[in-house]
Amino acid sequence: MKYNDNFNALGESYVFSKLNALVKKKRAQGETIIDLGVGDVRLPLFDVATEKMSTTSLDMAREDTFLGYPPAEGIPTLREKISERYKTEGASVDMDEIFISDGAKGEIGNVLELFGPKANALIVTPCYPAYAEANTLYGNNITFLPTSKENEFRPLPPYRGTFDIIYLCVPNNPTGVTLGKDELEEWVNYALNTGAVIIFDGAYSDFSTDGYPTSIYQIQGAKYCAIEIRSFSKSFGFTGIRCGYTVIPKTLGEYNRLWKRRLGCRFNGVSYITQKGAETFFSSEGQKQAIKRIKYYKTNAEILKIALKKAGFWFVNGNSSPYVFAKCPDNLSSEKFCEKLIDDYKIAATPGNAFGEGGEGYFRLSAFPKREDILAASDILENLKF
Amino acid sequence: MKYNDNFNALGESYVFSKLNALVKKKRAQGETIIDLGVGDVRLPLFDVATEKMSTTSLDMAREDTFLGYPPAEGIPTLREKISERYKTEGASVDMDEIFISDGAKGEIGNVLELFGPKANALIVTPCYPAYAEANTLYGNNITFLPTSKENEFRPLPPYRGTFDIIYLCVPNNPTGVTLGKDELEEWVNYALNTGAVIIFDGAYSDFSTDGYPTSIYQIQGAKYCAIEIRSFSKSFGFTGIRCGYTVIPKTLGEYNRLWKRRLGCRFNGVSYITQKGAETFFSSEGQKQAIKRIKYYKTNAEILKIALKKAGFWFVNGNSSPYVFAKCPDNLSSEKFCEKLIDDYKIAATPGNAFGEGGEGYFRLSAFPKREDILAASDILENLKF
Repeated sequence: MKYNDNFNALGESYVFSKLNALVKKKRAQGETIIDLGVGDVRLPLFDVATEKMSTTSLDMAREDTFLGYPPAEGIPTLREKISERYKTEGASVDMDEIFISDGAKGEIGNVLELFGPKANALIVTPCYPAYAEANTLYGNNITFLPTSKENEFRPLPPYRGTFDIIYLCVPNNPTGVTLGKDELEEWVNYALNTGAVIIFDGAYSDFSTDGYPTSIYQIQGAKYCAIEIRSFSKSFGFTGIRCGYTVIPKTLGEYNRLWKRRLGCRFNGVSYITQKGAETFFSSEGQKQAIKRIKYYKTNAEILKIALKKAGFWFVNGNSSPYVFAKCPDNLSSEKFCEKLIDDYKIAATPGNAFGEGGEGYFRLSAFPKREDILAASDILENLKF
Repeated sequence: MKYNDNFNALGESYVFSKLNALVKKKRAQGETIIDLGVGDVRLPLFDVATEKMSTTSLDMAREDTFLGYPPAEGIPTLREKISERYKTEGASVDMDEIFISDGAKGEIGNVLELFGPKANALIVTPCYPAYAEANTLYGNNITFLPTSKENEFRPLPPYRGTFDIIYLCVPNNPTGVTLGKDELEEWVNYALNTGAVIIFDGAYSDFSTDGYPTSIYQIQGAKYCAIEIRSFSKSFGFTGIRCGYTVIPKTLGEYNRLWKRRLGCRFNGVSYITQKGAETFFSSEGQKQAIKRIKYYKTNAEILKIALKKAGFWFVNGNSSPYVFAKCPDNLSSEKFCEKLIDDYKIAATPGNAFGEGGEGYFRLSAFPKREDILAASDILENLKF
């Protein structure tokens, strides 16, 4: 039997599973653990979305409203709404540059088929582990570009080297850092000068509410060098519904045409019910609710930061994501500190080393839990003594 | 910029697009075309499924019933029901060997990541074009094993050669041929003896109602050499909902473990709404409706066959799929005949050469349209003169 040897290089994602096992064990022992280690949302969907999905479901039972295979690229009405939305962000994206997906996680790896095997990928860390894992599985060569406390976790293009693909997550998971227009311009110019394609992960772009660019396409030239991946998961509570979108500009080499060809043999589209639900994000009620929800999560993050500040922690100055990325005290390793946090303080956090180089010695707190849990955790955190 | 060179080998899927363009043109000219060229279902979903999806949607708006990320491998209740169903088919499949997917088309290519690049794939033709296309895109080496009128389109293992992967579609699209127990045993033994893994595409298994095996796992040894891919699309009308499942036995080398690892970095599961809808397939009402629906489509196929017989066509003796695969008259090529069929008789069929080697000189009629269209088409077909 033949195996994909790249699985060996992949190894086990032991950091998360170790933590999950520990939380599970503690809870089984009757302990109450406040889980700030998860990236999943905790608040329910909005009525505007669930009611639309409910009626779309029922419509599928009627001959006159039944629908078979969805278009592989997504339904036109949703793609039009996304295109319109880009206009309000100061970016111009045609609907035939927009492809509806079942979420960002899959697409992060799916796009690799455009570049083919043995591509050279530059991955800015700390970051979502799936970037490196998908590239490893596909057999690409990976170079990491770690950010750190020294540069305030703000990545700049490398001085040396050329790459086929560059992964940038803005606002960043786990650090919460959003890049400014000038910083993104440097990245776009670097990509244009070296022939690289930026994979711009905007899964948290709706959390960027302070005037920073929300799309790479707000930067001149980006439509010649960037793919953008976005999602309804975090701002619209769609983690359990699975919907996102990927932009591949027609001006980006041959990639738009090739992606359509790929869809023809690899994908049959996203459920109508899901897409109709996603459409309500762009309604006035959907926007009202989403904005309120984002504020709720960002306030959660602020509450956590105030507590960490009181206890004397250093944390990254990132205000645009639902995460707080903080330095472990006493030069403790990420895992050591997170174990201690569970054992002694009953709070689960994600060890920073799970996010790759630059993450060791840090931990991530999620602002997605409900307010009561955030407040309970902050009461504990502000009195932390090490 | 770096491109995946395999796109060049892929070429354009011109047969389908050419036909679709022709149908569109004719309709734009005001002509009425009966479309028997599509593999999509035409009858609506069952109430039992849509009502469950509707209530699941509404539940997602309530704090106490909201659900975030689904398990990547699928929800336990659906996997249990599938496992139970296998028992009734005389196969033993544990729920932790079952993985819920968003449909068969994606999975046909996704499984290639288990074997890694440069695998040797044997593809029995005529077949669904996505097998060859996904393998080409991944950079595998493909050997075709064409079946033909001479062997009644019943594939047997090759005498020579070893392969890493073997694609078998049973019941077959486009021919409708189902393999018997003895034939599948030959394939399983061949795979066991040569170290190959069979990718058993059972997308039409629910249409096999004549006592033939419906699962490869009814064959002794298959759990050591076969992956099975099934779908809710055709028998349950789920083409627009997107749900299927993939079985990777724990006894199949390391593949079950590796697939779980792959899901960890490449997939975030299928919508709860979709999975809850799929579950109703296994309810008594769901089964009652599905069986009735399958009978409807199979009767459609029989009506088409009677008409073709009257007109003197030779067609494949396949009774277990919603397709009829027939020989073009006068040794016409597939495309020539299908063009003539549209031009002179206003019926769209799929040219057999779209399904690869062995398909040239044939055409496929779909039994998925509504009865009235099938009857109208059969009136025309039985009087065909060439």
